[in-house]
Amino acid sequence: MKKGSVLQSLSTLKGLVTATHTPMHTDGSLNIGLIGKQVDYLIGSGVNGLFIIGTTGEFPSLTLQERMQATEEYIKVTDHRIPVIVHIGHNCLRESRILARHALESGADAVGFAPPSYFKPANEGALLSCCKEIMADTPELPFFYYHIPEITGVHLSIKSFLTIADMPNLAGIKYTLETMGEFLDCIDLFKDRYTMMFGRDEMMLSALAAGGDTFVGSTYNYAAPLYHRLIDAFKRGDLAAARMEQARATRFIDVQVKYGGVRASKMFMKFLGIDCGPVRLPLSPFTLDKEKQFKQELTALGFFDWYC
Amino acid sequence: MKKGSVLQSLSTLKGLVTATHTPMHTDGSLNIGLIGKQVDYLIGSGVNGLFIIGTTGEFPSLTLQERMQATEEYIKVTDHRIPVIVHIGHNCLRESRILARHALESGADAVGFAPPSYFKPANEGALLSCCKEIMADTPELPFFYYHIPEITGVHLSIKSFLTIADMPNLAGIKYTLETMGEFLDCIDLFKDRYTMMFGRDEMMLSALAAGGDTFVGSTYNYAAPLYHRLIDAFKRGDLAAARMEQARATRFIDVQVKYGGVRASKMFMKFLGIDCGPVRLPLSPFTLDKEKQFKQELTALGFFDWYC
Amino acid sequence: MKKGSVLQSLSTLKGLVTATHTPMHTDGSLNIGLIGKQVDYLIGSGVNGLFIIGTTGEFPSLTLQERMQATEEYIKVTDHRIPVIVHIGHNCLRESRILARHALESGADAVGFAPPSYFKPANEGALLSCCKEIMADTPELPFFYYHIPEITGVHLSIKSFLTIADMPNLAGIKYTLETMGEFLDCIDLFKDRYTMMFGRDEMMLSALAAGGDTFVGSTYNYAAPLYHRLIDAFKRGDLAAARMEQARATRFIDVQVKYGGVRASKMFMKFLGIDCGPVRLPLSPFTLDKEKQFKQELTALGFFDWYC
Amino acid sequence: MKKGSVLQSLSTLKGLVTATHTPMHTDGSLNIGLIGKQVDYLIGSGVNGLFIIGTTGEFPSLTLQERMQATEEYIKVTDHRIPVIVHIGHNCLRESRILARHALESGADAVGFAPPSYFKPANEGALLSCCKEIMADTPELPFFYYHIPEITGVHLSIKSFLTIADMPNLAGIKYTLETMGEFLDCIDLFKDRYTMMFGRDEMMLSALAAGGDTFVGSTYNYAAPLYHRLIDAFKRGDLAAARMEQARATRFIDVQVKYGGVRASKMFMKFLGIDCGPVRLPLSPFTLDKEKQFKQELTALGFFDWYC
Repeated sequence: MKKGSVLQSLSTLKGLVTATHTPMHTDGSLNIGLIGKQVDYLIGSGVNGLFIIGTTGEFPSLTLQERMQATEEYIKVTDHRIPVIVHIGHNCLRESRILARHALESGADAVGFAPPSYFKPANEGALLSCCKEIMADTPELPFFYYHIPEITGVHLSIKSFLTIADMPNLAGIKYTLETMGEFLDCIDLFKDRYTMMFGRDEMMLSALAAGGDTFVGSTYNYAAPLYHRLIDAFKRGDLAAARMEQARATRFIDVQVKYGGVRASKMFMKFLGIDCGPVRLPLSPFTLDKEKQFKQELTALGFFDWYC
Repeated sequence: MKKGSVLQSLSTLKGLVTATHTPMHTDGSLNIGLIGKQVDYLIGSGVNGLFIIGTTGEFPSLTLQERMQATEEYIKVTDHRIPVIVHIGHNCLRESRILARHALESGADAVGFAPPSYFKPANEGALLSCCKEIMADTPELPFFYYHIPEITGVHLSIKSFLTIADMPNLAGIKYTLETMGEFLDCIDLFKDRYTMMFGRDEMMLSALAAGGDTFVGSTYNYAAPLYHRLIDAFKRGDLAAARMEQARATRFIDVQVKYGGVRASKMFMKFLGIDCGPVRLPLSPFTLDKEKQFKQELTALGFFDWYC
Repeated sequence: MKKGSVLQSLSTLKGLVTATHTPMHTDGSLNIGLIGKQVDYLIGSGVNGLFIIGTTGEFPSLTLQERMQATEEYIKVTDHRIPVIVHIGHNCLRESRILARHALESGADAVGFAPPSYFKPANEGALLSCCKEIMADTPELPFFYYHIPEITGVHLSIKSFLTIADMPNLAGIKYTLETMGEFLDCIDLFKDRYTMMFGRDEMMLSALAAGGDTFVGSTYNYAAPLYHRLIDAFKRGDLAAARMEQARATRFIDVQVKYGGVRASKMFMKFLGIDCGPVRLPLSPFTLDKEKQFKQELTALGFFDWYC
Repeated sequence: MKKGSVLQSLSTLKGLVTATHTPMHTDGSLNIGLIGKQVDYLIGSGVNGLFIIGTTGEFPSLTLQERMQATEEYIKVTDHRIPVIVHIGHNCLRESRILARHALESGADAVGFAPPSYFKPANEGALLSCCKEIMADTPELPFFYYHIPEITGVHLSIKSFLTIADMPNLAGIKYTLETMGEFLDCIDLFKDRYTMMFGRDEMMLSALAAGGDTFVGSTYNYAAPLYHRLIDAFKRGDLAAARMEQARATRFIDVQVKYGGVRASKMFMKFLGIDCGPVRLPLSPFTLDKEKQFKQELTALGFFDWYC
């Protein structure tokens, strides 16, 4: 991978970046063979980038070898059609560093990094040290810090982190938190240097108003067309239409949350014909009854009528 | 107070509703005499409504008698120039009920109610029972539920509450939380029946994009002109200008939070010539050193140059 | 009330201090007439002191007038048979100060004070200032700070508070938290000056081992004999017997928690013939079905066989 | 390893089980060569068992290979003098399963398992499924569930877990939480089947009173003699002496917490002549100034006079 191409592909990183599911067989083993079909589906639905092996991709439940194997396949099948960001977060920074090297060698366009969460960096300086350590071998690979404190418990200030960050390959933030004041402030201060990717799908309209133009989320797996309509409506100044799409999104997201987050998102994919299989423990599998109820609730909502 | 006038004044409840400070003398006693000057200042700065004796007004630290005395004075000096919403929240619902009756008799345009927070209503149904109980004697007085779970710990669903609410005088919600998805969804579902007032000043632009048009906050005490510019910019489609004002707001809000919330907001007023005095315990007073540092930080930020 | 008698009665404050329920009629009004019977029952069951109008007594749901009325009745009917500690905690310190004066005038042996919890004292110094302010008119009335951070959110260090406390009438702490290390450390450091009352009934044996000898709790309303057996077994060195009683206690406490804390504790009293009535909102009432299930679960546990 | 020897060694698992530090060189690489000296020191100080590569051993910061390498060395140098429990917790259950097999093959006496904490098992049934999955290849290796919800966020009921657990090799719980009521209840219910190891060193006396006889903690690295005195005093009925030792323990634990938990505990070892080196990121290293202050505070406390 050449540096030029990376930067070039990243400069086009706008719109919907889908946090992909890692496909699995019924027995929980990786379903590498499905990734090609999955990526074609996503690109076909208008997705602009991939964020692989993140929370939605069940990264904590995969072995290091599985993460590498899936990474290689995603990059191969995507074949530069859209940028691929590889999540390399791990409680063990040395494992993250291995994953960073592997991502570079595999041709990733960038990496993302959720911080260690069993032990937590105590302040922004410690976090920066962590980021530098894992990227020590890959100083030119674009790097996104993944801010998702509701899961990691790492409640640090992104504004402070960006202010002190002396890390040339820092490309931006995946910001998965509702505090839109800080998000807007960071765009205002750092928009020329950093890409602020927003990660709460039900608040896309807030992020657009704040000046955001890149969105990473799990619901872009199954509802990209709706979000493109939302973005388009916003861009042409039709706030009423944008609000209508956003309101629809909040409703299927509520159902997704009710039926279990990642597990439910994976089920959405099955309903749409891309069966990414079950989740792994510690996440709990769907029962058949629950699956049925879930589909009924989505049908009652009209999801299958207007999602695309 | 006639019903007609209440509804009429509420129909004009749009824009900035200032959560006022309760003025105190240096010894901590109420400074009732300042309220006239305070209200004139606020109306002069363009404020569109008052939310009195709320969190910013240190309601938990006032006796029932003091709350009534201040209520009467605010309503008298405001003299129907702008609507006055009286906060009646109390851990004891029977005290809230007394405050509701008093608010009605005093000519309040509406009441607001933060839920009990030592004991908490366990679900939306229990919350609705609380609301009905305190308003049992005042069934025609417009009523706003005050949603501020980060302080009260009452983490209930506003969408569910509005869905089950069979309370004719329910006028809307004071929504002080960052979850803009739910806020937008509620506007979409209930905008013809309820006023959704938004309460996170640093996210006004998000709320505008979501369709919000009424804002309650403490920073409208001292920076109303900035927020009016923000709203105007948004209305004329100048998002760049709106973002710039919002970014400025996030910065002085950061300083306010750093120096202590209500205490710091009260100090802002002093700097602007409306000395609302110290806060009461359990809030801690400013030291002279802190006051000086606070002013220096605001000066360095340029606050005194562009806030109005 | 003479100073001598207060100190004398407090020196005998050992054993079980019951956190009483405030009796109510079916319509939620105070059932003052039951207090005499309630107190006789408690004293008859071996209780050594009363902590009135605390969490179990639904203090936040009572008006100031109701608190005073109940205080007077409790003190009158107890008639110096055992000490009465009146809880005066309130979000408004000025109301607490009124309650302190009233408690003194009514002949209370001591007062207890849970800190304000809407606004919270920021550190031990601010807490001490609060305590001094509410006791400014009653400097000789024995005062207990009521530490219950799981409800109040006031997570301060009791060791630090006791270290800085320069408050002659500070009598001790009602310590309602599982951190037995700090509790033991405070006994070791301060046992000659302060009474450390322990407030987690399911951990009485831990507190005994730590040197505690005074216990405040709600389950001493309905199971005092069991806890006396526990204390006696511990004192005579029969740890096996003490553990058996403590294990039994954990089981009915689990059932109490499952059925709703204060609400369920009040129902225990009804089962034992002292019907303290329903709880007030915001706590939710029992349904008849729930009441039946609750009784069945207690019966299955054998509660009615061995509790006394 | 033969089954007989495992069970035999576990039947003697009583007293102090030290949660060891993983020794590191100044550059953060494993200092395998120190492990022999470390284990000799611990056994010399009276430690009765080892819990290796747990929280104190910075397990989340070690690679899988490092965990295996350290495991082999610990077991080799301990050479059956005392039991060795290998912690195999990992966010990825497949990695845990690999570690379980490796522990068995290396001759571990038992394994411990902290649950996944990025994704969390939703209930006791899901947790049990996790435990069974990781032990699928090692069904006769004694297994301890490691309950430490303040770090993992997995707030499940141990009583419920033990009640439903149909797992023949479940040996017990490492219980690191202050809720002594549940701990005592579990001993009462399950003492014939399971070993309840207690993990809050500052509450050892509570656990002894509850019937506990096995203790896992980090402060047994550097203060085992004190805790043996505490246990001995308790056993001979000298509660005053036991309390004095426990009070001393709370004080150096307070200092340890103030200076940073694992980091500070590692520094204790350095002061005692067993330099286990620095901690790894994301934990922050000591500065020289902090190290000096830390030692001064311990000296002022008298730690170096009476700890052993």
